[in-house]
Amino acid sequence: MDFAGSHILSVDQFERADIERVFDVADSMAPYAHRHRITRVLEGAILGNMFFEPSTRTRVSFGCAFNLLGGEVRETTGFESSAISKGESLYDTARVISGYSDIIAMRHPAAGSVAEFAAASRVPVINGGDGANEHPTQALLDLYTIRKEMRHRGREIDGLRLAMIGDLRYGRTVHSLSKLLACFERVHLSCIAPAELRMPAEIVELLRARGHTVVESDAMENSIAHVDIAYSTRIQEERFASRDEANLFRGRYRLNQAIYTQFCEPNTVIMHPLPRDSRAEANELDPDLNENPNLAIFRQTDNGVLVRMALFAMVLDVVHLVNRYESRVSWYTGKRFTE
Amino acid sequence: MDFAGSHILSVDQFERADIERVFDVADSMAPYAHRHRITRVLEGAILGNMFFEPSTRTRVSFGCAFNLLGGEVRETTGFESSAISKGESLYDTARVISGYSDIIAMRHPAAGSVAEFAAASRVPVINGGDGANEHPTQALLDLYTIRKEMRHRGREIDGLRLAMIGDLRYGRTVHSLSKLLACFERVHLSCIAPAELRMPAEIVELLRARGHTVVESDAMENSIAHVDIAYSTRIQEERFASRDEANLFRGRYRLNQAIYTQFCEPNTVIMHPLPRDSRAEANELDPDLNENPNLAIFRQTDNGVLVRMALFAMVLDVVHLVNRYESRVSWYTGKRFTE
Amino acid sequence: MDFAGSHILSVDQFERADIERVFDVADSMAPYAHRHRITRVLEGAILGNMFFEPSTRTRVSFGCAFNLLGGEVRETTGFESSAISKGESLYDTARVISGYSDIIAMRHPAAGSVAEFAAASRVPVINGGDGANEHPTQALLDLYTIRKEMRHRGREIDGLRLAMIGDLRYGRTVHSLSKLLACFERVHLSCIAPAELRMPAEIVELLRARGHTVVESDAMENSIAHVDIAYSTRIQEERFASRDEANLFRGRYRLNQAIYTQFCEPNTVIMHPLPRDSRAEANELDPDLNENPNLAIFRQTDNGVLVRMALFAMVLDVVHLVNRYESRVSWYTGKRFTE
Repeated sequence: MDFAGSHILSVDQFERADIERVFDVADSMAPYAHRHRITRVLEGAILGNMFFEPSTRTRVSFGCAFNLLGGEVRETTGFESSAISKGESLYDTARVISGYSDIIAMRHPAAGSVAEFAAASRVPVINGGDGANEHPTQALLDLYTIRKEMRHRGREIDGLRLAMIGDLRYGRTVHSLSKLLACFERVHLSCIAPAELRMPAEIVELLRARGHTVVESDAMENSIAHVDIAYSTRIQEERFASRDEANLFRGRYRLNQAIYTQFCEPNTVIMHPLPRDSRAEANELDPDLNENPNLAIFRQTDNGVLVRMALFAMVLDVVHLVNRYESRVSWYTGKRFTE
Repeated sequence: MDFAGSHILSVDQFERADIERVFDVADSMAPYAHRHRITRVLEGAILGNMFFEPSTRTRVSFGCAFNLLGGEVRETTGFESSAISKGESLYDTARVISGYSDIIAMRHPAAGSVAEFAAASRVPVINGGDGANEHPTQALLDLYTIRKEMRHRGREIDGLRLAMIGDLRYGRTVHSLSKLLACFERVHLSCIAPAELRMPAEIVELLRARGHTVVESDAMENSIAHVDIAYSTRIQEERFASRDEANLFRGRYRLNQAIYTQFCEPNTVIMHPLPRDSRAEANELDPDLNENPNLAIFRQTDNGVLVRMALFAMVLDVVHLVNRYESRVSWYTGKRFTE
Repeated sequence: MDFAGSHILSVDQFERADIERVFDVADSMAPYAHRHRITRVLEGAILGNMFFEPSTRTRVSFGCAFNLLGGEVRETTGFESSAISKGESLYDTARVISGYSDIIAMRHPAAGSVAEFAAASRVPVINGGDGANEHPTQALLDLYTIRKEMRHRGREIDGLRLAMIGDLRYGRTVHSLSKLLACFERVHLSCIAPAELRMPAEIVELLRARGHTVVESDAMENSIAHVDIAYSTRIQEERFASRDEANLFRGRYRLNQAIYTQFCEPNTVIMHPLPRDSRAEANELDPDLNENPNLAIFRQTDNGVLVRMALFAMVLDVVHLVNRYESRVSWYTGKRFTE
């Protein structure tokens, strides 16, 4: 895949070599994200950070990644626009907005909308989430985190043993991550979900067709006994007919330190796409895990900045220039980043 | 007119020489807007982009224009402020906010509010739209587009044949554009509107008093037969007593490729202030015109960036310095700008 | 107090020497805020301007202060985030968001929330207001204004005669300012309030215990006769059970030019934390004072930028570097700043 000038719309665009290139570039972004050095490689460039649906963390993560490369950010933070309510087509919106920036990150509630927008855009578009459809940078940051965590243990993604826990039906995150994992070798995936929220059959079949092992279960404890990663998820309450219906499943799978100690191998990494639901009736990852060094959930969001920096640098074709525009950081950086 | 330090509040401020200077400066901004070069002339300057009424495209256009000159943007994207609901006067808001930036672009729903704000402001204010009253940068970008389109045909604004179509009563755009046109010579204006939505008599009289020709009609087809520009508009639904009343007029004038081919001269330019209403019951400019090279509607919004850059540079008195702070663009720019 | 890397959460953190250092640094920021010079000392740094409650002026003031030091701003302008409504804890929000920036300015409606956030944050946090609790930068800018105004008269904070007028019960501003004043010497404070809205007893006692004089009264005219500063406040309508109840007090104390001339010493400074309520039924500071040179209310908001610049520079430990990264301003600056 040639990244320069490309839209990043779906995990389906990526082959293994593409994924690994993104991750290698993400690795090279760490000195800038961790404030050991600054780079101004994109000084003068403008990101159109078009969030037609609110999402503070994803929006700020994209914006911050662009700033860390030296660029400017113009943005929208929700459906403030009245143009669409006045009957404007997505085609027109895209033609207009793409005249205002060098690259666009976009979130929109309607599945397919980002691809439709990209088709009319005059600049590259990165999908920041289009409803139930795709959120490719989340899947990439998840897999990048897995790679980093495994490498700290002298391992690789090939041969990974992973448990996905919770709402595997509606969580777009686990679907996209599964598709990326399918590009690798010998993955053993445990799908832990209530019968009503099982992983879609086509995802299971895709993984098996590529030679991976998939085991399904509705009980958590024994299924997390021999995995490298336990990937927990939130019940996607907003996708159910009612809150009552969602509540049938909230709190079904709860991981806490006692269960971890009793069932997991000592180095099992805990992940979650966030936000985790910390209310008593859900609490899929108990706060008593916060001091567990294998809790990788905040390393995930930190890694999101690296992955987004990598995509911006690759799509705008400046990877080879990043360190030419670098300088020292002169301000206080007592930041405890997870490296 | 001396632009340095001036407020830009109304098209009435401009004489022909002023308009032409803005347009000449806008021309000189093209290399920066089209990303052939970058300039940092306003590095360190701050735009207060105060949108007390949401308008994504105008807000982002102003912000982007300022970024393209190297400046920073602080902004508000709607009536988030509770200060006004706590009884603060516009005078106080202006005194406070004008201490935070070097120049202000402002939109507000109340007619006259921007001028009232400007009177109390300690920095120059550019009107980004104050209700039904004024939106001078829209009128300037429209006329600038007309100049560019005509020059591509070896012509000038003098002698222009223009048709305005649709809601000529409530559309502030067509009123302001008419006033700017009045500063030029030998314009022939066809006003095509339902009787209820005719161009206000004072505008027609102004044009005639300056020696221009104005013809009024309620039928489109023959009136667009011998014009250089067909300027279509949206029915300003929000200005009618009810949606039903607006619907009496929506869809009255529809321009599509078949009508264009049958009635218009081959090079007739199609313009629209956007957003165009693409719903079936309105559809004033059919999407089948999207491939017509004379459809200039997205060139209009691109030109808006140039005109706003020009105004910022003129009001902040840096026109002569822009190219002293310039450098090369090092990132991917496959952008298909309309030059 | 060591500012480098510290959170700024409460006025209780400050001793007299700390306050004076902040003010001295604020003085040194004037050339940059007043656009005589620019500095890029924080080029590449990112402020997370996290306003979980809307407040245009405080948000823009923080953002502008950071821009004036050369840094970038990523921000949120209200409760757009759905993460919290999905059950995310403030701990998680803080862990995530603090990975996106070098320093955070935060406002939140819940008392104590900013300190809770700071405890989990990996970067320094500055409290921009947490409900009824604290707003330390407001108290600092008020006292900084007092120092500047007094110095123009050849005086200092020690020995100050100050009247606070209005809602002294619910106004967090007057409480915090009183605590800062308590660090100085020989302050004479007149508390002018209705019996129901008196200054809390613990504040009065604190001041008296430190050797200051506090006089309480419910009548304004004679109490402002011999003060250096008359500090007026708005009735905090939103803290009352109903608007009717608040209206019992709105308009109780009105200062205008006639009363000023009749009762005050000729150089008495008029202050207000803003917004002032200019509706007829309240109008605590009449607009006829706007031309009175002793009306310092807009100097207060201007000073807010200086104080916030100082805090950013001190917490990020770049005070000694500010003028190493400076250059000339090349654009129009007809700004009439109050120096």
